[in-house]
Amino acid sequence: MSDHVYKVVELTGSSADSIEDAVEKAVARASKTLHHLRWFEVVETRGHIENGRIGHWQVTLKVGFTLDE
Amino acid sequence: MSDHVYKVVELTGSSADSIEDAVEKAVARASKTLHHLRWFEVVETRGHIENGRIGHWQVTLKVGFTLDE
Amino acid sequence: MSDHVYKVVELTGSSADSIEDAVEKAVARASKTLHHLRWFEVVETRGHIENGRIGHWQVTLKVGFTLDE
Amino acid sequence: MSDHVYKVVELTGSSADSIEDAVEKAVARASKTLHHLRWFEVVETRGHIENGRIGHWQVTLKVGFTLDE
Amino acid sequence: MSDHVYKVVELTGSSADSIEDAVEKAVARASKTLHHLRWFEVVETRGHIENGRIGHWQVTLKVGFTLDE
Amino acid sequence: MSDHVYKVVELTGSSADSIEDAVEKAVARASKTLHHLRWFEVVETRGHIENGRIGHWQVTLKVGFTLDE
Amino acid sequence: MSDHVYKVVELTGSSADSIEDAVEKAVARASKTLHHLRWFEVVETRGHIENGRIGHWQVTLKVGFTLDE
Amino acid sequence: MSDHVYKVVELTGSSADSIEDAVEKAVARASKTLHHLRWFEVVETRGHIENGRIGHWQVTLKVGFTLDE
Amino acid sequence: MSDHVYKVVELTGSSADSIEDAVEKAVARASKTLHHLRWFEVVETRGHIENGRIGHWQVTLKVGFTLDE
Amino acid sequence: MSDHVYKVVELTGSSADSIEDAVEKAVARASKTLHHLRWFEVVETRGHIENGRIGHWQVTLKVGFTLDE
Amino acid sequence: MSDHVYKVVELTGSSADSIEDAVEKAVARASKTLHHLRWFEVVETRGHIENGRIGHWQVTLKVGFTLDE
Amino acid sequence: MSDHVYKVVELTGSSADSIEDAVEKAVARASKTLHHLRWFEVVETRGHIENGRIGHWQVTLKVGFTLDE
Repeated sequence: MSDHVYKVVELTGSSADSIEDAVEKAVARASKTLHHLRWFEVVETRGHIENGRIGHWQVTLKVGFTLDE
Repeated sequence: MSDHVYKVVELTGSSADSIEDAVEKAVARASKTLHHLRWFEVVETRGHIENGRIGHWQVTLKVGFTLDE
Repeated sequence: MSDHVYKVVELTGSSADSIEDAVEKAVARASKTLHHLRWFEVVETRGHIENGRIGHWQVTLKVGFTLDE
Repeated sequence: MSDHVYKVVELTGSSADSIEDAVEKAVARASKTLHHLRWFEVVETRGHIENGRIGHWQVTLKVGFTLDE
Repeated sequence: MSDHVYKVVELTGSSADSIEDAVEKAVARASKTLHHLRWFEVVETRGHIENGRIGHWQVTLKVGFTLDE
Repeated sequence: MSDHVYKVVELTGSSADSIEDAVEKAVARASKTLHHLRWFEVVETRGHIENGRIGHWQVTLKVGFTLDE
Repeated sequence: MSDHVYKVVELTGSSADSIEDAVEKAVARASKTLHHLRWFEVVETRGHIENGRIGHWQVTLKVGFTLDE
Repeated sequence: MSDHVYKVVELTGSSADSIEDAVEKAVARASKTLHHLRWFEVVETRGHIENGRIGHWQVTLKVGFTLDE
Repeated sequence: MSDHVYKVVELTGSSADSIEDAVEKAVARASKTLHHLRWFEVVETRGHIENGRIGHWQVTLKVGFTLDE
Repeated sequence: MSDHVYKVVELTGSSADSIEDAVEKAVARASKTLHHLRWFEVVETRGHIENGRIGHWQVTLKVGFTLDE
Repeated sequence: MSDHVYKVVELTGSSADSIEDAVEKAVARASKTLHHLRWFEVVETRGHIENGRIGHWQVTLKVGFTLDE
Repeated sequence: MSDHVYKVVELTGSSADSIEDAVEKAVARASKTLHHLRWFEVVETRGHIENGRIGHWQVTLKVGFTLDE
């Protein structure tokens, strides 16, 4: 593993249901165009409020992936 | 939207069930006295332990709302 | 309560299911060898990605407990 | 001055023009209901983008004021 | 305790004597108008200098209290 | 809005005139190749000094945009 | 000194009297089981409020000590 | 450039007009006694409020300069 | 220089030898596809341990480059 | 006050007695060579341990003063 | 890997030679008493100066290891 | 040691070779004009890139020294 170089991108996923679902959606979307996704780190958890209830969650994460050789 | 002024308050919600439920309870309580709640940001996630298990979650969030004109 | 001294240890729990479950597992494991666990604070939320989906969550927490007199 | 107690509130001001104008609007709005405003500190500078240009600035500040005796 | 919602306010207390006294004065002032104060956290310790000596301490703290049901 | 995924990129804009102009230039440049720019956040404000005066401002910002479906 | 390895542990001391006393109590408790304590650093200063007054201080510190050869 | 050593000093400039002007004044004042000023970084933006309006801005910056050989 | 816009990307380089070598490898890999690389900043230094020794270093850096006109 | 430029220096004061005394000693020492000291901010509180007790406190502070016209 | 719980300890290694050597010494010392060491993260790099030269480096790191089942 | 007051200055050293060499050069330069240098702490590690390779390292450190009595 010691010769790899990784790139880290920052994404924000949204979900009406949960923090986990917002992360899952961001990772799923990223995997359409990026290969070799390896890890993520949550860096911010926010959300919108509608009529006194949570409308949806917005979770920002960093995602790391191996650069193709 | 560019002429609004927002106020931000800090709240801690508690729940025996989940992080999401603790946030939902804090937002619901705030909406009883504050109108025009718009967004929240989670700033701390803690909890109490009882008998070797999570007793309840304590989630601190900032909540932003439009000041009435 | 004012005469107690607490110690704080840092743990990382893992779960394929949720952030809450990763914390619960770390607390359960700690309670096997440490008594008087009182509180926890989440300090980092990461995870591994496998085949474009979240493989498991890795949640790092600080756990505080009362030192035996 | 040594016997005063101050309270600090957090506000977000908006302006289509500049950072300074967004702060000025937040302070002006606060002064309608709070007396003895003394100082502010900028804690976040964000904004919205519309059609590839800055639509408006959103500047979050802490504002300190003397509590009435 | 798991059903409570807490609010957190930020205050700055002043004292010519000590950090502890500045905190005590801020808490005493807050308790005149807020009930059910539960905890505080020191977030900044500053002070003014007069003639080469400490004139007074200014300690900023967050104070948490239970919102009335 | 709850089904969108956003990407965040980091840019540094420069201007001899003002902080606002440096941000505007970075946003204008980004909009040439990225669509659906939504928001920005200033993360660093620096500058170069030439002959005892500010030569130009260098403002680093994060810019968020919707990923095309 | 250049060949030593130190370990750092995190403790919270409590005192009804002062910040200094809370630190002193934590250090005294640690010295019962750990030898060669060398330094400490205060990382958090909190406290509980009882009846509108400070009930006790809770000061969290990191304590470094030399590992026995 | 690789053999230079730089020193960094921290200054606070004030202005009734703008953030940029406060920085410009601090840099101009520093250049009276320090040569070879190269860059600055804004580290804090505060201000005083007078009669419900911004009285003046106080901007703290780090300024780097080459040490004379 | 005042009219340029820079982009900043985040990379992680690995090396069995040293921190400097891990940075060099990340920069070398980035220069295959990105032109006009100008500066880097180390933001995290981690590593893996194998059999009680450092297996390899993982250094995360931000790399800035000029966007082509 | 709006036309002044301030300089900020960083000092560490020591005391066997208290945090306040360590700050007082640093301010007193600074006032021997610097005029117009105005404010300070505590940025780190550490100390040395001798024989299981606090040997002395080491408090690092930033001190601001008006630059002579 | 998803069922493991890790513990994180904080160590400071010293070396007259380099940052890498200080980390290596801390990891080597930890492996004498802790099994299953997996990763480390550098959290502070300091050092002592003797006669105008670096006497030794002091590097503080967090080290994670799997708790035995 | 408890009666000393220390001053802390911030320097940036450069080197084409390594992080350690950049620190060594900054300390050596400081020791020409400052006596009683005691410790340093690395606060930022950056560098310039030239032709796809590291041109030189720029390491910013804080250096503490005893003020002459």
